[in-house]
Amino acid sequence: MNENLTVVGGGVIGLSAAWRAARRGHHVTVFDPEPARGGASWLAGGMLAPVTEAWPGEEHVLSLGEESLRRWPAFARELAEEGADPGLAGHGTIVVAFDSADAGHLDILADYLRSLGRDVEQLTGREARRLAPGVGAVRGGLHVPGDLAVDNRKLLTALFDACVRRGVEFRRERVESLDGLGPVVLAAGAWTGRLHPLLESAVRPLKGEILRLRPRRGCLPPPPYTVRAMVEGRPIYLVPRADGELVLGATQYEAGFDQAVTARGVRELLEGAERILPGITEYELVEIAAGLRAASHDALPYVGELGEGVFAATGHHRNGLLMAPVTADAVVAWLAGEPPPDEIGAATPARLLEKERV
Amino acid sequence: MNENLTVVGGGVIGLSAAWRAARRGHHVTVFDPEPARGGASWLAGGMLAPVTEAWPGEEHVLSLGEESLRRWPAFARELAEEGADPGLAGHGTIVVAFDSADAGHLDILADYLRSLGRDVEQLTGREARRLAPGVGAVRGGLHVPGDLAVDNRKLLTALFDACVRRGVEFRRERVESLDGLGPVVLAAGAWTGRLHPLLESAVRPLKGEILRLRPRRGCLPPPPYTVRAMVEGRPIYLVPRADGELVLGATQYEAGFDQAVTARGVRELLEGAERILPGITEYELVEIAAGLRAASHDALPYVGELGEGVFAATGHHRNGLLMAPVTADAVVAWLAGEPPPDEIGAATPARLLEKERV
Repeated sequence: MNENLTVVGGGVIGLSAAWRAARRGHHVTVFDPEPARGGASWLAGGMLAPVTEAWPGEEHVLSLGEESLRRWPAFARELAEEGADPGLAGHGTIVVAFDSADAGHLDILADYLRSLGRDVEQLTGREARRLAPGVGAVRGGLHVPGDLAVDNRKLLTALFDACVRRGVEFRRERVESLDGLGPVVLAAGAWTGRLHPLLESAVRPLKGEILRLRPRRGCLPPPPYTVRAMVEGRPIYLVPRADGELVLGATQYEAGFDQAVTARGVRELLEGAERILPGITEYELVEIAAGLRAASHDALPYVGELGEGVFAATGHHRNGLLMAPVTADAVVAWLAGEPPPDEIGAATPARLLEKERV
Repeated sequence: MNENLTVVGGGVIGLSAAWRAARRGHHVTVFDPEPARGGASWLAGGMLAPVTEAWPGEEHVLSLGEESLRRWPAFARELAEEGADPGLAGHGTIVVAFDSADAGHLDILADYLRSLGRDVEQLTGREARRLAPGVGAVRGGLHVPGDLAVDNRKLLTALFDACVRRGVEFRRERVESLDGLGPVVLAAGAWTGRLHPLLESAVRPLKGEILRLRPRRGCLPPPPYTVRAMVEGRPIYLVPRADGELVLGATQYEAGFDQAVTARGVRELLEGAERILPGITEYELVEIAAGLRAASHDALPYVGELGEGVFAATGHHRNGLLMAPVTADAVVAWLAGEPPPDEIGAATPARLLEKERV
């Protein structure tokens, strides 16, 4: 034990892996020009919601997400024991529909989840509005009580602090080559494709804009649930924070490595949010931001050995925060030569080789 | 000469007055917690456009604005001679109309301006779009060639630097009382009402939100003119900057001293701007901000002696940048015991006493 480990990337995946490895006695070095704050996880909404993200045909994503969700409470508790509480909230999710097309979409989702034995409750418009006061004229909804949410910025700060306390070394620089780094975890999000030939065309940036709002005096407070909806075909979510802030996300574009906040993105998010929560018009718009998710060729991440001493932990798409605990556990198992969590098997980067062969 | 002068407020009015007075040999002290950057002028669009702001019944505002506009080129030249060019742009204004109601509004404005002998050119929709490529499906327009625009941030920086070079002393604090300050100019914008009983109910904050955008690669560049329009009853303007930036303003609310950027304000500005310039959707949204204009009880500012040794230079509403030169000249004339510019007469605070008497 007490081996060295290099982690490329200081977002939620890299910091989680670094912390867990350092806790097991490894000497860890994290390379990131701006750890914690520089990437997609700093901007995220923080929903830990595998069920409302589920869709027929993506069972592996659901299973992996649910497995990670099961690991979240212990992960958060252990992090809190090291000094900083990441702010896990168990307020559940409501998905609302505004027209018959959206309501039909919810029916499909509800049937699918029931067929898998998942706990969902269908709501009339009136029931949805009773659970989430302030929500607009909805036609119906789904209530998913088991979802969690985490304040992503508290979490990243807590992870960073825990890493520092555990002796993790931070190098604020970019990694150009893996030569001589020893065992290394590639967790550089959308930029990971630049680090390994097998990932080069497999990981791509998926731009997202996200806003942060805050009720002004006299405004209706945010709903006590995470509220999701499709508005004119665009998925929108509103995640309340314990401190009163409301996170509104997120657009989704293929725009290369461009990280500019666009006029269109902000306008569409605000319009969608007004449909869901009419009172949001009077909220203060505190922050506008854009970041790059790491998308994979399918909806699953790449978590597993890429080659001798090189471990991929990337391509988490919209699920980086959700899947951080199970991914970090897979890294630790790899370092110890133990078998990884069962559900991570589907995320093996070996499927890229199969894909190439086909 | 070489008397002391205190200026309360380091926005465009206060800095202009301070610079001009220091140039004449006065020893000037400016009080402002955040000179240049802290107030409404830092956020402004920088239109110097008295004609397109004109409206029947507000002839005094038009005359005063035009008089100040005439003083602008020399003001800018003298400032440039002291070291920093404020970036005066002579690109004129186009006002566009999207429906028959807006077009009717433009006809009234054109008739009115012609009756006053002002130079305006009525445009068909096609002509308007030829002058300002990228403008949406407009019904008609007005071209006002004599308007100017100034980069407000360059201007404020230039004024601040010129003040420093002329020995103006800056005290980064709020003024609570005028006792013992000697001759003093009250130029604290929306906050000026707190400094003198006569202004207390006469100057009020008028909130405005304003955005700054920038074309991304592949975007149509901003139009070469300032473009103004009414969109669903809300006045919108787009002011191009020499460096490619486009300023989009401005909302107008009575909201006390609240300076929060609201979701509604941003959404309405973006929607309006998309109507005027459809390609703006792909622009980067660089900045969202809100500030407080100083509104008066009529549309004129208060410029003149309030009492022994106390001079008002406030209440400029949407016209602070435009009216800075004539206001500064009025301050200098007051200090020298000379008559002020003729057109400033209508702006005398003495009209508040008449109002009280009625």
